[in-house]
Amino acid sequence: MNRKSTQSEKADLFKKLHYSKQMLVLPNIWDVTGAALLEETGYLAVATASAAIARANGFQDGEKIPFEQALNVITQIVNAVEVPVTADIESGYATDLQELKINVRKILATGVAGINIEDSDPKTNKLLPVDLQVERIRLVRKVAEKAGVRLFINARTDIFLKPGSLTNDEKLKVAIERGCAYADAGADGIYPIFVQDETAIAALVNEFVVPVNILITKGTPELEKLQKLGVARVSFGPNLQKAMLLAMKTSLKSMKEKFSHSLITDVLV
Amino acid sequence: MNRKSTQSEKADLFKKLHYSKQMLVLPNIWDVTGAALLEETGYLAVATASAAIARANGFQDGEKIPFEQALNVITQIVNAVEVPVTADIESGYATDLQELKINVRKILATGVAGINIEDSDPKTNKLLPVDLQVERIRLVRKVAEKAGVRLFINARTDIFLKPGSLTNDEKLKVAIERGCAYADAGADGIYPIFVQDETAIAALVNEFVVPVNILITKGTPELEKLQKLGVARVSFGPNLQKAMLLAMKTSLKSMKEKFSHSLITDVLV
Repeated sequence: MNRKSTQSEKADLFKKLHYSKQMLVLPNIWDVTGAALLEETGYLAVATASAAIARANGFQDGEKIPFEQALNVITQIVNAVEVPVTADIESGYATDLQELKINVRKILATGVAGINIEDSDPKTNKLLPVDLQVERIRLVRKVAEKAGVRLFINARTDIFLKPGSLTNDEKLKVAIERGCAYADAGADGIYPIFVQDETAIAALVNEFVVPVNILITKGTPELEKLQKLGVARVSFGPNLQKAMLLAMKTSLKSMKEKFSHSLITDVLV
Repeated sequence: MNRKSTQSEKADLFKKLHYSKQMLVLPNIWDVTGAALLEETGYLAVATASAAIARANGFQDGEKIPFEQALNVITQIVNAVEVPVTADIESGYATDLQELKINVRKILATGVAGINIEDSDPKTNKLLPVDLQVERIRLVRKVAEKAGVRLFINARTDIFLKPGSLTNDEKLKVAIERGCAYADAGADGIYPIFVQDETAIAALVNEFVVPVNILITKGTPELEKLQKLGVARVSFGPNLQKAMLLAMKTSLKSMKEKFSHSLITDVLV
């Protein structure tokens, strides 16, 4: 029997992948071809990058792309692969809890196994009050439970992204406070984006009772090291798209300068 | 004064680029990021690849992507760059002339400077009768003129794509007959896709009174050579996307095997 998994089964499988010895590696993609490629090369799950989806469709990051358009891309991606898909929905495209409830239902309808939800306010670019974010996470959990899906909620805290006047130690303290509150509220994982310091990563892994997601960018410790530190999951945000666009730029510039197409066509089969 | 060009001005500029000493090189793209990259690296125009747009959105080639969805992508691309954009609209997503007329109006509304229109029937995968294709090209010209745009019509003939029982010489003869008929009907350029033989290319350039577009793929003569043969324009169809996906596949496989992210992050700035 080769029946396809249900959304609920995929969500359960996706959660399980966070408790494996092998750290979960999610090089976030932005369209169907990328998702298919991940599955084809043996990646166990697919994560979308909101900033990359926005960029590919002509929008800046920060909930500028219409929510429905982002949902369409996510639906296409879910339909293109059998592995679980987790979608980055920024802070939920919602101005209040009522709107968030409606939007979570819509995101569940795409068939995703998990989401990233962040604690930045896209309007002010400041952190949302921790109590409000706790309430929002509780609501996401409730809506998902009602839909019969143990949606994997990856709660992102943006404290390391904010310039502000805090020292790194103070930021770490805020990240721990927020992460613990989010886990208590029902988050399945905590994503303190942009932390790179090994001691800080170790502290976060130690403090949280749920899996920790680290962003991979230039300067992040290597995968082996992160796995040893107990990191459960790494993701790339918009960095795979950035890297691919830089490679494409090199090819296009070089073709122009050398007036030769072989740099592009040599790899074709 | 830094006013943006009108659609009509862009169409005229695009036509002019086909009569330059420098052969027009169009590495077809499929989303906004690719279009922006082409402009940034000094390419003088942007061409879309229908197959690549379809693939990025989860569809097979052959007018399987809903026309409106393809139009949305084309509109995004036109809005993202200042250089002229030419769109590949397969054979027009139309079952009859009335539908073609409506569709050409829609494609004009995206702001494109030119189109590719092919003489394959997406339903049968056979060539459309030459008289019908002539009538279709005349109609496109008429609709564009009514809209006040000298839309660059690149008439693609698919004879070299078809297996069939014809020899290469017979195919060349058909391509010449069809190309001449299309030029008479108002086509601004002829695109005999998949021809690679230098003698055949030279013959086509010699026979047509309008610019010739050659597809670049593995085995196509180099750009310098094509320019010497009098080719006015080259395009890549879905081959830039294919090459980029192969590069991405290599990176993703390698990251998995070496358990290292540096292959992807080293290029980031």
